[in-house]
Parts: sequence; C-alpha cells; structure tokens
Amino acid sequence: MLTDSSTAAARAADRAHVFHSWSAQGHIDPMPVAGGSGSTFWDYEGNHYLDFSSQFVNLNIGHGHPRVVEAICRQARKLCTVAPHFANDQRSEAAWLIAQHAPGDLDKVFFTNGGTESNEHAVRMARLVTGRPKILTGYRSYHGSTHTAMHLTGDPRRWPSDTGTAGAVHFFGPYPYRSAFHAESEAQECERALEHLEQVITLEGPQTVAAVLLEPVVGTNGLLVPPAGYLRGVREICDRYGILLIADEVMTGFGRTGRWFAVDHWDVVPDLITFAKGVNSGYVPLGGVILSERVAARFHDTPYPGGLTYSGHPLACAAAVATMHAMRDEGIVEHAAWLGEHVIGPGLRKIGEAHPSVGDVRGLGVFWALELVRDRRTREMLVPFAATGAQAAPMAELAADCRRRGLWPFTHFNRLHVLPPCNVSAEDARRGLEIIDEALDVADRYAAE
Amino acid sequence: MLTDSSTAAARAADRAHVFHSWSAQGHIDPMPVAGGSGSTFWDYEGNHYLDFSSQFVNLNIGHGHPRVVEAICRQARKLCTVAPHFANDQRSEAAWLIAQHAPGDLDKVFFTNGGTESNEHAVRMARLVTGRPKILTGYRSYHGSTHTAMHLTGDPRRWPSDTGTAGAVHFFGPYPYRSAFHAESEAQECERALEHLEQVITLEGPQTVAAVLLEPVVGTNGLLVPPAGYLRGVREICDRYGILLIADEVMTGFGRTGRWFAVDHWDVVPDLITFAKGVNSGYVPLGGVILSERVAARFHDTPYPGGLTYSGHPLACAAAVATMHAMRDEGIVEHAAWLGEHVIGPGLRKIGEAHPSVGDVRGLGVFWALELVRDRRTREMLVPFAATGAQAAPMAELAADCRRRGLWPFTHFNRLHVLPPCNVSAEDARRGLEIIDEALDVADRYAAE
Ligand SMILES: Cc1ncc(COP(=O)(O)O)c(C=O)c1O
Ligand SMILES: Cc1ncc(COP(=O)(O)O)c(C=O)c1O
Repeated sequence: MLTDSSTAAARAADRAHVFHSWSAQGHIDPMPVAGGSGSTFWDYEGNHYLDFSSQFVNLNIGHGHPRVVEAICRQARKLCTVAPHFANDQRSEAAWLIAQHAPGDLDKVFFTNGGTESNEHAVRMARLVTGRPKILTGYRSYHGSTHTAMHLTGDPRRWPSDTGTAGAVHFFGPYPYRSAFHAESEAQECERALEHLEQVITLEGPQTVAAVLLEPVVGTNGLLVPPAGYLRGVREICDRYGILLIADEVMTGFGRTGRWFAVDHWDVVPDLITFAKGVNSGYVPLGGVILSERVAARFHDTPYPGGLTYSGHPLACAAAVATMHAMRDEGIVEHAAWLGEHVIGPGLRKIGEAHPSVGDVRGLGVFWALELVRDRRTREMLVPFAATGAQAAPMAELAADCRRRGLWPFTHFNRLHVLPPCNVSAEDARRGLEIIDEALDVADRYAAE
Repeated sequence: MLTDSSTAAARAADRAHVFHSWSAQGHIDPMPVAGGSGSTFWDYEGNHYLDFSSQFVNLNIGHGHPRVVEAICRQARKLCTVAPHFANDQRSEAAWLIAQHAPGDLDKVFFTNGGTESNEHAVRMARLVTGRPKILTGYRSYHGSTHTAMHLTGDPRRWPSDTGTAGAVHFFGPYPYRSAFHAESEAQECERALEHLEQVITLEGPQTVAAVLLEPVVGTNGLLVPPAGYLRGVREICDRYGILLIADEVMTGFGRTGRWFAVDHWDVVPDLITFAKGVNSGYVPLGGVILSERVAARFHDTPYPGGLTYSGHPLACAAAVATMHAMRDEGIVEHAAWLGEHVIGPGLRKIGEAHPSVGDVRGLGVFWALELVRDRRTREMLVPFAATGAQAAPMAELAADCRRRGLWPFTHFNRLHVLPPCNVSAEDARRGLEIIDEALDVADRYAAE
C-alpha cells in the first residue's frame, strides 16, 4: 500500500502507473503537489507557489474554500450520487443559480462532467435544431479532446488525430496584434473579421452550417479579447443565416473575465453556452450546456438523444451551489474585474514598457497575457508557433525562472498568461507581477532592444 | 434561494431549469431522491426503494459507504483539485491499485471523468498505435454519448445523430437465445459468431481495422454473457490481424460480474480496458483507460495527443482508493460472485420456471436479466425492439408494479435486469427477487401459457 506520501513514493507510483495528458510519458517528471490554500499550493519539500495558472485555469476561487469544502462534506454524508433520471435538490439549485446568471433566455442546464463533453453535446443540439451538419470554429481555439471536440479545436493539438471527418470548418477570428486581414486598427480588424466570417459562411453554404462555436475571449490560444463590435456582429450574421451561436465559456465563465460570463461584456446572447471549470472551481468534475428556449423547445416532445451516467452529479452540483454563493456573497466576480482594471492591467502595461521582449499586453479581469517577441518592430515571436523542444527553450527558461522565484506560470507558445484565482488578494497579485517583472529578464536576453 | 428542499421545490426547479439525459423534456416528472443508504434510497415522502438498478449500474458498493464518504471529506479538506500535469498521491495510489487488479501487462492508467471519454480516448490510442481508421463494435452495445462514442454504440440511441462518419463498423456478437447465426447450441453460436467476426474483418480489410471494441458481457443491450470460448477466439482473431482488443468494462468492471473485471472469467487480456462507474461507485465522477505495455510504449517518446482538465482528479481518485480498499477488505467482489451462484441465479431460474412471460434467464454475479416474451415457443418479445410509448406499455406496467412494491427496477426493451449493489445482503437480494416474482404477474397477462 502506498502509505508513504513522500515526494519519492508519489513520484514513483506516478511514473509507474499514471498515464498523463498531452505528454510523452518517458520524458516527464510531474511535480507531486501536497496541498493548497487560496492562491498558493506546495510540494512535499515545502516549496510554495503562487498559482498564476489557477491550476488549469479552473481554480477561480482558490484552493480549500471553506464553504465549498463544507458543502462537499455535507453532501457526501447525505448522498453522493443519483442516476440522471431522478431529481435532486442540489442539481435543481445549481441549475437555477446558473440560469439566474446566464444572459437572455438561456434558462435550462444540461450537466456534463467537463468542458469537452459540454461542447460535444452543444454541437449535437445545434445540429438537431438546425438539421445542418457543419460547425464553424476559430483556428485559434481549444474545445476539448474527444474526437469531435478535438476536430472543432483549431490549435495544433488537433493535428495528430485529425481525420477531417467531424464537420468542423475553421475560420480566422480577430487578432489585432497579428491581423490575418492586414487591418491597421481595432475597428478595421473587427469589420474585416466579420466580413471574412460571412464569406466563409457564404462559400460553405449557409444551409449547411449549424453553428458558429467560439470562445468569446480566446483562452489558451492567445487570450484574444475581441474588438468591441465583433461578437455582436457574429450574432447578427448567425441570425441572418439561421445559424446558432455557441459560446464556449469553459475557461471564461464564472468570473474569469470580471463578469459571470464573458459575453456579458458585450451584451450578446448566444443560443448555447458551454461551461465547466469555474462553475465549481473544479473541486468536483462538472460541466454543462445552458440552452436557450428555442433550443430547449426542440427537445420538448422529442427526446434529446444524449446523456451520461453522472449528468447533474449531486456532489459536483453541491460544490457548484456553494461556489456560486461564495462568489456572490464575497463579491469575487467584482473583485476580479477590479483587479484587472486597477492592478493587473496597469501593472502588466508597466512591465510591458520596461521589457523589450514584451510585444503586446492584453486581457480582462484575471485573464491576461503577455505576448513575447524577439523584436518589437517586426513582432517576430519569441518562439515559433507550435514550438517544442529546443525551439521552445526561451519560454521554458522563463517558466523555470518564474517557478524558482515561487510563481507557477502558464505559458503557451510565445505567451506568458497571467491567470490567478479570481479572489487572489491585491497583495499577492502585485507580488506575482513583481516576480514576472524580474523573470522577464530571461526573455529579454533573446530580444532586440 | 432554494432553501425548501421539499419534493415540490426540488421538482419545480428541476422542471424549470434541469435538462435531462435521453428525455423529451416536456414529458418527464423525475422523482426527487432525498437520500440513500446501502442498497436503499428514498424520496421526500418517506417511500423507500430497494435499488435493483444500482442507480445507473454504478453503485457497486451501495450508498453512503462510510470509508468512501470519510475519504472524500478527508481529501476535500486537503486538496480537491490539481492540474493533470502535476503528480498527486491519491492519483498515484488509485492508478497503482487499478493496475494491481487489471489483467496481464495492463499497467498504466489514463484517467477521465466517465465511460464515454474513456472509450473516446481508447479509440484514439488504438488508431494511433495501428495507424488504421476503423473500429469494429457490436450491434448490441452502448459505448457513450459524445459523437464518436455514440457512433460506436450499436443500440438505437445512436440513430438520431448517426452521420456514418465516425469510422465505426458494427458486427453481430453471440446471443444464443436469439442467434443471428441460426445456431442450435452455445458451442455453435460461439463458432459461428467468431467466423462472422473474421468475415467482417476480411471484407472490411484487416489493414483498415484498428480495434475491436466490445463489452465482455454486454450490459444495457441484453446482459449477454458470451459462450465459453468467444472472447478467447476474438483475442486470437485480433492477434492474427494486428488488431487491438478494447474491453469496455465501464459497466462490468470492479465487481459487477463477481470478478474485478469481466474478462477475468475467461482469462483474456485485452490491449486496453475502459472503466468508470464501479471504480468508485460514482461517488465522484471518474473513468479511465488501462493501457498495455505495447500501447503505452507508443507514447513513450511521442506525446499522447489528448487530455482533460480533470484527468486524475484527487477527490475522484481518493474515492476510488477507498472503494477498492473497501471492496478488498470486505470481500465485496467475492460476495457478488457468491450471490450470483447461490442466491440470484437459482432464484431467478426458479422465477423463470413459474412465469410464462420469462423466456430466458442469464447473468453472472450481480449482473442478471430476465428476457420477457409473449410466447416461450416463438420467443416473440414482450415488447418490440426499441419500443416506445404505447408499444412499450407492458414493460412500463411491470416497472411501475415493482416500484409500487418498493423495488427500483432497471428495464430495457423486453428485459428486466437485476442489478443490485455488489454488497447487497442476501436477505435484501431475496426480498428483491420476491418482489420481482410478484410483479411478473403483470407481464404474464400478456404472455401465452
Ligand atoms: C475553451 C475551452 N473549451 C473546452 C475545454 C475542455 O474542457 P475539459 O478539459 O474540462 O474537457 C477547455 C479546457 O481547457 C477550454 O479551455
Ligand atoms: C458499457 C458502457 N460503456 C460506456 C458507458 C458510458 O459511460 P458514461 O455514461 O459514464 O459516459 C456506459 C454507460 O452506461 C456503459 O454502460
């Protein structure tokens, strides 16, 4: 029995028996995490890390929130699991609370276990509602890792298993810093990105397109905050062609951008929202789809042909109920917005000015990125797109330096993302920014003055 | 706030905001479950039900097992969640324990949130290992509800979203009671089923087939225990053509059939096993894939291109560790085997003899079915394949009668399954059989003497 929970034992059993996500199994040495509290976690040797990645961008309320822990224990003693065809008070309350916070007429919740399943189900719903096969998604996107969710994904994680058979068509979204449209302003980027989307729809055949699926603020693939009119424009195009709009709020939902949902920044109401992560900070696996009346109506008399054993899991829903109550009572969403405006945004912009390796600074709430370059003028990326191994070394060195200084970073390609829990203290946020400021000297070594 | 947890409040919020699996939302009235203990659960009005469906065939150790509840609370206080790229003692220990119980060289565990994701990932692995596209699965099967898992599924739940694009090819498995091969004995059924599988492989082109994916004992779609030599024969055919064998043990794993894994009954070692449900009785959502050395080796130097936020979730893994310890210390798997041999099997066979509506009795451990017919001679099904509404009335009446008598049944098409928790007491098992014996009078009314 594995009673010795020292680093060595956990590490040895991990290497012997745990097969890890997204990894070459012979070339990893995962750090055993012993515990966590708030925005900090630690290993078995007493090294503490300020968590600027919120684990996998799911830990919106930090580790060990007492109300959520208490709710989990209470529900565990009462009833851990029921089959999805029963009703359950925690499930009902979680759905009710989510519906309260969801925009427009999005009022019904189909629960899943995570983000991937949520996108799979949302896409099935869209196809059944419209009777059309294709789903349009962004090239710079991540939507999950089952076969279809992976094909919907635009990033290189799709490549190894891409068979081109999932009915996904990829388009370019707005990205002012590296415009695919040769735009010279945010307004122009917006206009041209909408024109491009409409062209793709026209050429694919509008009557073949079930939905546009997008991350309202693209997460892992760039922290791309859309120009002001973009999402509203997408909504209009969708309406024009009878296409559904699915907002993948798996990463952006539940406070990350300083609003309950990112679409709230632009008052856009999608037909479907998918969520996971922040709904209960990942304390218990949970995801879901929020359906508009129109979508739900399609399955009023006809069965929805999908389901899962743990849909609306009581323990997961109890954690969600407690999380949403805590977020509301403690003003966590507002705090995230405040941090973005008054601490992280200004702090990162100052850092950006001081470091020649910082090409762009962008974000909202506790959802920010520094895009790192070798040359601010040419905007040459600090490491190439989809770089691995030696090519990715500058970013690996930067990340290692952050960790040495006690900050756990989130890096992707040539970007350093800044993703603390939504309730990180201003003090910790500032401390994290100081560490990043220091660590960026590593990146500067590769950058032209 | 939903503070009133009475039937009415839970029901009202459920109907207003919860979108249910596999249902026409306007035509359901899910029963609110208030609590559960062991093999029993109850509603808010004090009605108690003996659970002969183990919720969704996941509750192998019953409700509220104190060791598992305690483990969940302990881990919740320590650390609910870590990102998949870290190591964690509970994850390590769960993987180690699973590897201990898995057959042959199946030694590495990739954790997911449920059965569906497990099959999606196993299929991706098989495709990458072999470089081949097709997956062969049984017509009578269920493998999950994302796009690809749904297409792998053979049952009618696949029909509404079938686009024929997932690379799934369906074959007929052995089903002695309704042989697709006009066989007259178990041995002949076995031989002909193997011959059929090999023919399908030959005609599909062996070099296009990545894997045969099957439930070692088909669950929802018939409780089909394979004839003695069948799985061994499938293994040999797979080996002959370089095809991987994936055993979907989502329903059968962790004691359900009276062994840790169903394949153990026939000493067959698949290349991949998928699991979920019983691994922690669904107390916290968890599933996974167990990989053989050969499959794992493919991802030693090349990254496995798949993953998920909650892979190896500490709370879910802590529940799995406690469940496996409890199963071992309390002899739960052996108890399930004993119940099958000495209580449920003999009891059901006696019931079968007494009721003209019972055409066939089959099963293992705590995994049994009565196949109901209108006529034992012609074997006409009590209700047709995929029956709904009025056509399905006789089965609906039977189920309602069971519930009235305090037993929660699991029915599918023309079958009544008998699926209590693995640690149901002999007394409760006998009481359940008595209720079934009484309730079957309802079915007999439709059956010829
Ligand atoms: C935008 C987005 N969608 C979907 C997913 C997939 O979620 P999960 O890993 O819970 O399946 C992620 C995960 O990072 C995500 O960021
Ligand atoms: C054999 C089998 N495979 C896969 C699944 C899907 O598992 P889940 O509902 O956890 O996704 C099930 C669910 O009943 C199953 O019985």
